[in-house]
Amino acid sequence: MTTLNQAETGVAAAELTAFVTRALVAAGLPQDDAAKLAQLMVAADLRGSDTHGVIRLPLYVRRLRAGGVNARPNIRVISDRPSVALIDGDNAMGHLVMCRAAELAIAKAKATGIGWVGARMSNHAGPAALYATMPLAHDMIGIYFAVGSNNHLPPWGGCESLLGTNPMAVAIPALQEPAIVLDMAPTVAAYGKVRLKAQRGEQMPPGWMIDRQGKPLTDPKRADEGYLLPIGDYKGYGLSLIIGLLAGALNRAALGRNVVDFVKETGKATNTGQAIAALSVESFMPATDFKQAVDHLIRDIRNSQRLPGVERIWLPGEQSHATLLHRRAHGVPMPKALRESLDALARDLAIAPLE
Amino acid sequence: MTTLNQAETGVAAAELTAFVTRALVAAGLPQDDAAKLAQLMVAADLRGSDTHGVIRLPLYVRRLRAGGVNARPNIRVISDRPSVALIDGDNAMGHLVMCRAAELAIAKAKATGIGWVGARMSNHAGPAALYATMPLAHDMIGIYFAVGSNNHLPPWGGCESLLGTNPMAVAIPALQEPAIVLDMAPTVAAYGKVRLKAQRGEQMPPGWMIDRQGKPLTDPKRADEGYLLPIGDYKGYGLSLIIGLLAGALNRAALGRNVVDFVKETGKATNTGQAIAALSVESFMPATDFKQAVDHLIRDIRNSQRLPGVERIWLPGEQSHATLLHRRAHGVPMPKALRESLDALARDLAIAPLE
Repeated sequence: MTTLNQAETGVAAAELTAFVTRALVAAGLPQDDAAKLAQLMVAADLRGSDTHGVIRLPLYVRRLRAGGVNARPNIRVISDRPSVALIDGDNAMGHLVMCRAAELAIAKAKATGIGWVGARMSNHAGPAALYATMPLAHDMIGIYFAVGSNNHLPPWGGCESLLGTNPMAVAIPALQEPAIVLDMAPTVAAYGKVRLKAQRGEQMPPGWMIDRQGKPLTDPKRADEGYLLPIGDYKGYGLSLIIGLLAGALNRAALGRNVVDFVKETGKATNTGQAIAALSVESFMPATDFKQAVDHLIRDIRNSQRLPGVERIWLPGEQSHATLLHRRAHGVPMPKALRESLDALARDLAIAPLE
Repeated sequence: MTTLNQAETGVAAAELTAFVTRALVAAGLPQDDAAKLAQLMVAADLRGSDTHGVIRLPLYVRRLRAGGVNARPNIRVISDRPSVALIDGDNAMGHLVMCRAAELAIAKAKATGIGWVGARMSNHAGPAALYATMPLAHDMIGIYFAVGSNNHLPPWGGCESLLGTNPMAVAIPALQEPAIVLDMAPTVAAYGKVRLKAQRGEQMPPGWMIDRQGKPLTDPKRADEGYLLPIGDYKGYGLSLIIGLLAGALNRAALGRNVVDFVKETGKATNTGQAIAALSVESFMPATDFKQAVDHLIRDIRNSQRLPGVERIWLPGEQSHATLLHRRAHGVPMPKALRESLDALARDLAIAPLE
């Protein structure tokens, strides 16, 4: 969970969105697509997904320029039933593919109660919560699955990384309370956290990774020699596999040995798979009744007895929501390293830098 | 996972089913309902779910006789859309409710690609895998969620058990390989395992439970003073909450403080909630193509490199499948304590005992 620092001030979302749009247009995207993608990337930063938002822009641009992503795609529905569809993303930026998938899932849920839309030939699409939360405005529950963009997780008992930190997110609407939004990978630690420890010269706690002997690996500089550990031992392995099958194999997208490392192989299509479901609350009861029940449960949980030393019990997504409110008012924090990488990108693309 | 003991021999499934049917008829169920329920309970034992099958019969009979469960229910669909329905179980045995729900979900998936059916006023229905595997025969993926029948899990940071070991199961069809079946609770240990440790006079490993100070609780005889721990810390808490909302609150079934302990309050309706989804593989591609891809992935995983000392990499559900094959041929094991409790039940109900 993101730790909220109320003292942070940063770049206004509109400014950041304009900069990202400029960069994506310079990298070859049509204006409308660039603007939509920029809005989604900044939305990730606003919610506190610092590792999955604008920080990825230089990599995205590198992939676009290397031909690893299609800047002018024809995203199309290749299989369509009343409540299920499969989209071929034509190797577009994943955000554009999954935005289209979410819209289609919502339309199907309006008509039949639920919509499930899978995508193939997509790409990294930012944080899972971005799409799981899209159905909320329609009084729908959102469920999202994705195949991770590289493999760092072996099967339980194994030492060959055939699986990824395949994320899932579920968003459930509330009335006066923030929606419940669970966004998680089935590994103890995300790989981004390992990289961060390495950058900071810190050790990892035991339980994050193991080495080829199955012993705890705590030096993040040696991460290439080791493997992430799943949550709940074989349970997290099972979750990663199931998410991979629903988001990948079922959509004829990459899974297992076919997964392309999107950082290392910038010129190669990843055939990333994702899936989103929208489930209409009104199919069960008036939406307000449900949302009131969710509020009630949220308050029961928040006000329940705490262990010694625990100041507050949080609901999934509550801290991200607080971050969202803060950053909408005070802007997105811009650490020095991020600012420098965006300035370098601006020079490289010959566009106006972020002010 | 169940450890397979190839030396076990036991009672033939047909004999056990006939006995359970007799007992349920004596407890007031119509013959057809009793036979269907018995078949499902024995199916749980056949797959190795020893804690969720016939061992529960005395409790079920106690609840039926105490009026806690309705032996002559009118199970009916109270909300119906093309791809979503809500069933009111009229406080029937959960197996009968969820069997009906699975049939309806499969029919909807045939018509529209996916069916999602929730249930309220249901009861304990045995292992989650029982229902998640029902769509497999129709080339569908099955997804099942349930609210656990008592609360042993606090919110993360809390010490008030507002949540249960809410299980989920997902079943994915394969071609020549056994289907992939993940059946898991979001806690490190199931409560049944804690009870088993107490019976055997063994200690629990740290990580299963904590006490009211948040310290590891390892004496299973003190389980009432403690709390189960979720997998992956706040992640397992989030999973339990989400599963509870999808299976409980969304169906106007019990969740949080409303959950009735079905062991302690045998005369009280539990309003248990469950949900099942069936997703048609043919909506995405010819089923054989998908199942071949699943076989391929299964073999890649099984044959991948192992950590030192690991003899075999298992797929989720593979050991249960091996148990099923063995028990179909050699019968369901009948430990002395179980045999005695079934004999006592037979005397109590004045029915012919298990031979």
